[in-house]
Amino acid sequence: MHKDEKHLILLPGPPRELEPMFRESVKPYLRPFANGVILSHTVRTMGIGESAMEELVADLLEGENPTVAPYAKTGEALLRVSARAETAEQAERLCGPVLSELGKRLGDCVYGIDAKSIEQALVARLIACGKTLAVAESITGGYLAKRITDIPGASGCFACGIGSYSGDVKRHILGVKAETLEQYTAVSEQTAIEMAQNIRRMGGADFGLATTGYAGPATQTEPGGVSFVAIDSANGSRCEKVVTGRENDRDFNRYVTASRALDLVRLELR
Amino acid sequence: MHKDEKHLILLPGPPRELEPMFRESVKPYLRPFANGVILSHTVRTMGIGESAMEELVADLLEGENPTVAPYAKTGEALLRVSARAETAEQAERLCGPVLSELGKRLGDCVYGIDAKSIEQALVARLIACGKTLAVAESITGGYLAKRITDIPGASGCFACGIGSYSGDVKRHILGVKAETLEQYTAVSEQTAIEMAQNIRRMGGADFGLATTGYAGPATQTEPGGVSFVAIDSANGSRCEKVVTGRENDRDFNRYVTASRALDLVRLELR
Repeated sequence: MHKDEKHLILLPGPPRELEPMFRESVKPYLRPFANGVILSHTVRTMGIGESAMEELVADLLEGENPTVAPYAKTGEALLRVSARAETAEQAERLCGPVLSELGKRLGDCVYGIDAKSIEQALVARLIACGKTLAVAESITGGYLAKRITDIPGASGCFACGIGSYSGDVKRHILGVKAETLEQYTAVSEQTAIEMAQNIRRMGGADFGLATTGYAGPATQTEPGGVSFVAIDSANGSRCEKVVTGRENDRDFNRYVTASRALDLVRLELR
Repeated sequence: MHKDEKHLILLPGPPRELEPMFRESVKPYLRPFANGVILSHTVRTMGIGESAMEELVADLLEGENPTVAPYAKTGEALLRVSARAETAEQAERLCGPVLSELGKRLGDCVYGIDAKSIEQALVARLIACGKTLAVAESITGGYLAKRITDIPGASGCFACGIGSYSGDVKRHILGVKAETLEQYTAVSEQTAIEMAQNIRRMGGADFGLATTGYAGPATQTEPGGVSFVAIDSANGSRCEKVVTGRENDRDFNRYVTASRALDLVRLELR
């Protein structure tokens, strides 16, 4: 191939077509032109904002090889560590110490390195531990169960899910006490915890997980983006309040609530 | 503004930022340069493949104003009708007869014109009719409930959802008979119909909807992309088999199964 030759590679737009074509044809085609390798790892976190994360690792962001770059994804922050070297092994050796330093600084916030998603990391972990999960969803209305069952093999850890949008269903199917709903309302720590306890028992699972909240858009009587996530296990119950700050972004609020619920299980599994 | 002046508009990549900027700033900025208007409507269909749809409307695809163009979306086919004219009213008048002809040819397959999705069209329709829906999901494991509750106001028609991944949950929570599971297996018309009947009763809903199937990836003992969707209502029960032809594409198979289930309710509401 002549040094001055120009190469045009035309690819279709849809990711479903483009991605395998790039992986299977373009990448091997381009490899002979490359000078060494660039190798990346992604440190994925939950429960820490992008700016707080950046502060904790500020000095490492100035490195040149490997580089460390922060990214924000929906409801989570991640860091990409990329090294350039002559061989993949050398690049790995450059990444290693930085990845381990990031792990130390970010601690429990790290849910996985090169994990595809919190649900993928969690399902793998549950299956490895032989533990099962049952979910009761109000605000997320199926989103939590959907994300768990997105993962092939989820049947190995997913006992069942109940989506209870109305107070009636919370009472009659999930068995939340009428007094709890009256005294604390459906969107409360108390209701979330009762939902988690009851779904754990109904599903015969190791963990019961529940969500309740206001997805938005906000109305005159209800805010948006406020929710409670609760977990119940042999170790007792725990609840966390999630405030997203985006009261009209229904999809974001539901996604983030589901993510934080999944993260409760991960933290319980430590 | 001088006729030969060049204008560069630079926009950020993320759709969440780009779309409102384009809508609120770029579009009004560009309007004075435009010669007339182009106006589009989208005819959305379910239950017909793109090529079958194209055959039914082949002659209309040759029109020049309005143009009619077919598109494939995940699990559905749609047609975009676009007219160019001096005013929006004139463009609407050009689209009108073509839209009505497409409606005649495609009949029940059309679930909406300019609808955002089958779930959006269905939730609007259920609320308008004052009807409620309860879902029992095996293969879709929450995806169906998630898509319904994606729509603001879904609490007006969504009674409840149960995700029953295991045979145990199908029996103990959903009350599917052990004999049905043994005789026909969990992935069968009989199981789907029993799930639909039971969830309708449990949720006290007008419609009970159920999914069961193999999401994939395919294994030695199970195919992928084969499912049953069933509906139960005061008019009795009905079941449909869905074969997607993509045995390893879990997300596609789950999405398409959920879409076809939603479509059963739409057809029942006619």
